[in-house]
Formats: sequence, C-alpha cells, structure tokens
Amino acid sequence: MINVQDLIIKKRNGQELTREEIQFLVDGISNDTIPDYQLAAWLMAVYFKGMNAAEIRHLSLAMAYSGEVVDLSKVEGITVDKHSTGGVGDKTTMVIVPLVAAAGIPIAKMSGRGLGHTGGTIDKFESIPGFQVNLPHDRFVEQLNRVRAAVISQSGNLVPADKRLYAIRDVTGTVESIPLIASSIMSKKLASGARGIVLDVKVGSGAFMKNREKALELARDMVNIGKGANRQIVAVLSDMSQPLGYMVGNNLEVREAIATLQGEGPSDLEEISIVLAAHMLVLGGKHADLNQAADEIRQLLKSGRGLDKFKEIVEAQGGRLDYDIPAYGMPRSRFKTALRVTRSGYVTELNAEEVGRAAMLAGAGREKLGDQVDHTAGVKLIKKCGDYVENGDAIAMIYGSNEARIEEARIRLAQAYQFGNQPPQPVPLLIDTIK
Amino acid sequence: MINVQDLIIKKRNGQELTREEIQFLVDGISNDTIPDYQLAAWLMAVYFKGMNAAEIRHLSLAMAYSGEVVDLSKVEGITVDKHSTGGVGDKTTMVIVPLVAAAGIPIAKMSGRGLGHTGGTIDKFESIPGFQVNLPHDRFVEQLNRVRAAVISQSGNLVPADKRLYAIRDVTGTVESIPLIASSIMSKKLASGARGIVLDVKVGSGAFMKNREKALELARDMVNIGKGANRQIVAVLSDMSQPLGYMVGNNLEVREAIATLQGEGPSDLEEISIVLAAHMLVLGGKHADLNQAADEIRQLLKSGRGLDKFKEIVEAQGGRLDYDIPAYGMPRSRFKTALRVTRSGYVTELNAEEVGRAAMLAGAGREKLGDQVDHTAGVKLIKKCGDYVENGDAIAMIYGSNEARIEEARIRLAQAYQFGNQPPQPVPLLIDTIK
Repeated sequence: MINVQDLIIKKRNGQELTREEIQFLVDGISNDTIPDYQLAAWLMAVYFKGMNAAEIRHLSLAMAYSGEVVDLSKVEGITVDKHSTGGVGDKTTMVIVPLVAAAGIPIAKMSGRGLGHTGGTIDKFESIPGFQVNLPHDRFVEQLNRVRAAVISQSGNLVPADKRLYAIRDVTGTVESIPLIASSIMSKKLASGARGIVLDVKVGSGAFMKNREKALELARDMVNIGKGANRQIVAVLSDMSQPLGYMVGNNLEVREAIATLQGEGPSDLEEISIVLAAHMLVLGGKHADLNQAADEIRQLLKSGRGLDKFKEIVEAQGGRLDYDIPAYGMPRSRFKTALRVTRSGYVTELNAEEVGRAAMLAGAGREKLGDQVDHTAGVKLIKKCGDYVENGDAIAMIYGSNEARIEEARIRLAQAYQFGNQPPQPVPLLIDTIK
Repeated sequence: MINVQDLIIKKRNGQELTREEIQFLVDGISNDTIPDYQLAAWLMAVYFKGMNAAEIRHLSLAMAYSGEVVDLSKVEGITVDKHSTGGVGDKTTMVIVPLVAAAGIPIAKMSGRGLGHTGGTIDKFESIPGFQVNLPHDRFVEQLNRVRAAVISQSGNLVPADKRLYAIRDVTGTVESIPLIASSIMSKKLASGARGIVLDVKVGSGAFMKNREKALELARDMVNIGKGANRQIVAVLSDMSQPLGYMVGNNLEVREAIATLQGEGPSDLEEISIVLAAHMLVLGGKHADLNQAADEIRQLLKSGRGLDKFKEIVEAQGGRLDYDIPAYGMPRSRFKTALRVTRSGYVTELNAEEVGRAAMLAGAGREKLGDQVDHTAGVKLIKKCGDYVENGDAIAMIYGSNEARIEEARIRLAQAYQFGNQPPQPVPLLIDTIK
C-alpha cells in the first residue's frame, strides 16, 4: 500500500516517484484524502529536489485527467492552441487567433484572467463591449467548425487537482518551482484538447522567468510533457524585459491588436505574432516549412483577411465594435495623465513588471482574485528602450476611471524607466526555439 | 506586519529568521492562526536549510513559554534534570535519580512514555505496582524538598506549541531535522523548570542519531540552547549500538536498576549512571570536580544509600515492592521462550533497534499512542557483543502475556544478532562530553 508520508520522504531524499505513486498523490489531491499539510510538505520537497522528466510527465497527465477533459474530436482539422507564460502588454493572442483561423487551422483558445502584474487574455477580449467568453461546449465546437476560432474562459471543471495544488503553492512559498510550473501549465493544455500546442515562454523583468536558463528549463520541461502526451508541440522563448508593444490595459490592448491586424502595429508585436502563428500553421498541418507558413501569415496581415477574421470572431461571440470611429467605439477613460521626464537622454531600461504594476494600480488588473477590472484603465508607453527623450517630454500616458489611482500609477510608472547618456544594447525579441 | 508566507520563503531561501519572526510563528502555532499547511512547508524548508544557533534558541524559548512553565522556585537547592535522547534498555534514570537525591541534590524528573522501539521512563516506574506518576504540583514540590527526588509524567499543558509542531512533523517527513529535534527537546526541558540539565545523547543503531557527527551536532545545539536560556548544562554522548544492560522491558528493567543499586548491575549501566549522576552533582553545586563527584556516587552505590533512597522514592509515590523476594514481588510473565543459536562463534553485532522492536512485539512497548503496555513483557539478553556462543546456546529469553506475540518477538530478535569467527572491536561506551 502506498503511504503519503513515504512519498514525502522519498522526494525529500531526492528519489524518483513512480507513475503509480504520482497517480496516488493526484487521486488524493482530487478526492481530498490527502490533507493540505502533507501536500505542502511534498511541494516544498519538490521545490528543493525537483522532478525528472518522467515524474513531470506523470504529474501533468494525472492532473490533466483529474477532471473534465475537453473533447475537440468533432472539430474538423488539427486543432491548435497557444499559451504564453505571461507578460506585460502581451496581446499576441488577439492577433494570432484570427490569423491562424484565416489560414483555415482551427484554433481553440481557452484562456485565463489576469492576476498581479500580468494581464489575462480573457479580460482583454471581455473588454470588447458585448463579447461573451462563456460558450457552452456545443456552441464552442460549432463556432470552431464555422469560424475556425473561438476564445473562451477556462471551464471551472478543468484540472481540479491543479487548482487545489496551486492554491496550496500560492500560500506556501512553492510557486517558484520549474517542474511544478511546467506541470501546472501543461495539465491545463492537455485537458483543453488541442492536438498542437505553441508555447510562448517569456524571459525578463516582466516575466515569471527572469533569466534565460530558467526559461529554457521550463520550455524543455513543457515540450517533453507535450511529446510524452502525444501532442505536436513547440516552445518559443521571447524577450519580456520591456512590455510588448506600447499599450498595457484591456481596451488599449484591443486597439493595438486591431491596429496590428491593419498593418499598423508595433514591430515587436507583429514579429512575435507572425512567428507564433507560423508555428501553429506548421503544427496544424498547413505547411511543412516554417518560412512558408510565415509568408502566408504575412499575406493574411497584408490582405486584411486577418482583420476580417477578427471581426467575424468578435461578431460570433456577441462583441460590438465600430471599426470606423476612434477607439472602435469602446468607452474612453474618464481621466488621463502624462508622465514627463526631468532630464534628457536615452531610455536604457523599461522594467516590464513595474509597467504592469502601474497599469494594475490604474485599474487595469487585479491584485487579488475577484477584484473588479476597469477596462478603460492602463498605460500607453510613448518612449521605450533605446528611444531618446528631451527634458519635459511626455514618455507615457496613464488612463483610468479613478483620478487618485492614475496618479499613484504615474508615480509607480516613473520607477520603471531608467535613463542614460548612451543608448542601451538592443535585446533580440526572439531568443530560442525548442522542439 | 509579519506575514507567514514571507517567513516560509525567507527560510526556503536560506535566510535567518529574527527573534520577532520566530515568536510570530510560535504565537501562530499556539493560537492556531497559522494553518498546518504553512507550518508543514516551513518545516520542510527548515529540514533543507537548517537554523542557526540564534534561531534555534529563539524557537526553543518561544515554545517553552507557549504554555504552562513549571515553577520550582520553592524547591531548596539547585534542581537538576536529566534527559536521554532515547535508547533501548536505557534504565539509567531509575539508577541516577536515587543516587543524586541521596547526595542531597534535588532532582525533578519529568518524563514521557515510550513510543516505537524505545521505552519510556514513566512506563518503567509505572510498572512498579502502585507507583503514582501523576502528582499535583504542591505534592511534587513537597516531595522534592522532603525526599529530594520525584518522578512525574509530563503535564499536558507543557509546551503546547511543540505538541502541535511535532504532530505535523510526524506526518510530513520532517522529524529528522537536528535543529527541530534540539528545539523540541529543549523547549520541554526549559519549561520543566530545572536549573541544571544533563543530556545523554545516544549514538548508534538503537538511537535516533545513527552516527557520531549527527549526535555531536544535536548535542552542541542543545547545549547552546540551554546556555542561551541561562541553564547549567552538559551533554554526554554515549553508545547505543547495542542495548544498555541485559534487560529490555518495564518490570525487567526495574529489576536490573535495583540490582545495579545493589552493586550487582551490568558494568555498562553502572558506568554511564555514575558519569551522568556525577555531572548532576557538579551542576547542582555539590562538587566543582567531576572526579570527586563520581567518587561520591560510587560511595552512595557501595554503602547502599542509593538503594535506600530508591525505596524511599518508591514508597513516597505509593509503589509496593518487596526487596527480599524474587522479582521484588512484581508479577511474572505468563509465558517465556528462549532464543537459541544454530552456530558457534562470537556475537559481532546486536542491533539495539531490532532488540527494541522485538521487546515491543512481545508487548513491552507501543506501536502507536494509546496502545496498552504489558509490564511483564520484554527481552533478557544472555549474550551481547563480543560474547562467545556455542551452537544450541540460549542467547536471550523473551517474556510476555501472549504466547503468539513472544514467538513473533523471538523471530524478530534473531535478526538483531550477527555472528562471526572473530570477536568484534570493542566500542567505548562514553564517546564525548560537550559543555
């Protein structure tokens, strides 16, 4: 008979747990037969001793099947999904989903809400007036077949074991463990049913992984899990030392995504969107060659067919936008304020996490679960790394419904910027690809 | 404001916790404001990252004062106490208490019950017919002043924080942490009120500390805690690779202790008893010199005054023994069986833990809290390490009230012995002294 305490001690002593032992743990997590304190001790032992590839795979699979699993077998074609480990100003999903769907590959996007300094894709789509993120399964499948894309909020019945484990990790100092992060993310991806998965692993000040080595380790762990579960999978490492694009905040990011689909987006957002979307076309079986896939994505951007698909998705999910008027008809914020510089020089650093926190303070995000989000709130960066500023220049704008909060956000945002007399070394956006 | 999660992360990252932070933890343990799962994570972090001398001292003191503290201020003289980290056949307390009291030094002995393979001093005294181990505080103090010794079961209100913490450690794989063991033991000793403390740290197969380095570390930690709390303290490291003396089991050990007080005890038991008792006389202020103290103890043994004091203590606590009849009038076991050898040779190993488990199986101990103890059950060793045995010799006797159990115990006991053609290297009983 397997005994929880033995498993804690085994892991504490650095030994490998078998598939059966990990299944026993996950069963105990799901049916509440293992108490929180034993899980907490096991998690801390994993923090120190890690898990090998087999253990991580067993844990992810056992968690993936701990609850409901999305059945996408009625969707025609190879469904693909994309996951970002979280960044600031990361609105790539809003750009990629229509592009991939426009190429005919079904993209079933289940997303979460934002917490802390990073935003959530669901909050961004939901900031479009009328946009419905809760679709019944039948309608989700129907839309995937008709429109080739649907964006929904992650079901509450998905991966209950991960939910319980994450809640414990969150209060026991065991969040920062790469095997646990990898299994948590991948259990959700496996339960979400897509056959092809593209992972965007963010590296830098605004990301959970602050350095390249840790990010690579996480990417490799996740790719291994996916392969072990018979998924087509690829991970891209991309820079998150400064925010992606210029807009941070829900309505602001919708605007920037639409601008990108109109061919007028910031180059970093466009570049990463093309790469990720191209990988999805390859996994979805549209192209064998990544460059050909990227060419098709560029065509879809240029021809406006990506934008058309975006409109189609918004309409299918009840969203109301008017593409011919400013801000596409979305409400404007009540207040705004400018952040100005008191010196001249180059922006040498723009700390993405600080920008994210400033946007959150302005009302764009949640400090804790259940907090209300102000869709009109956020930050528009005017100057980013490498840009030259003159004393007195406005380098960013802060928007929101609460004047005191945007003032607080402005003070916080000032801390995100560093200046110098020399421009900084440019940082490449795409760091690595792991297959 | 102090936050538990920050303290977990601080310890996880190998940083030192302040006195205030440790007090916050202990307060949260005592008043149940910190949940078990956060304590479990913190304990596992301590398992991996340890605690420095200051942290261990803060933890012990905070736990010592988490509940009732015994007030021995009305006892004349410097009260002394003795603690053994637990061994097999360790009946030294029954020998030492009367010797130290006979020398006029008040010895306030609070003890626990046995669990697992080690016996408990309270079980041993309680196996004397009529012996009362629960004395009200006034009577405890009165007896200490009149008889100079009293032996009582540890009060339920002592160190509640340690009780809760230990219960969590017991099921989360965090028992085997030297700083946690040291603080647990010392919090109880500090709360027990004695001014002088002699620690007997056992090393070897029958002890919790299997090797000398770990035992030394534990001894040093405990001595530091005692000094930091203004106690006179000394730790002796002694061998527990084989049981102390020949008797293991409650009534059997009472008989061997009395025999020792009559000058007819096994030499190892006599030797360690003299050393520990001598240290107690020094701490109690009777002698400045350890050799002079040892001489007085030898005199008390030889003159029979130690035995007289034993009788006095037994009588004061309601015990009934008849020193002129076999087994001193204590009940004899219903069944006994002999363990015989099937080869000739030297006993090269006598694993104390296995002997302890055999005695427990025979009925002498508890597998879990609340189990009934059979006072007549146990093991009498006939041959110990270095002894020569002839094929067919009885090397041990097993006693108990349940025939099936003593047979099970016999099979187990056979595994404790190893034989060879050469006698083993003798192991010194006294390993080290830490002041």
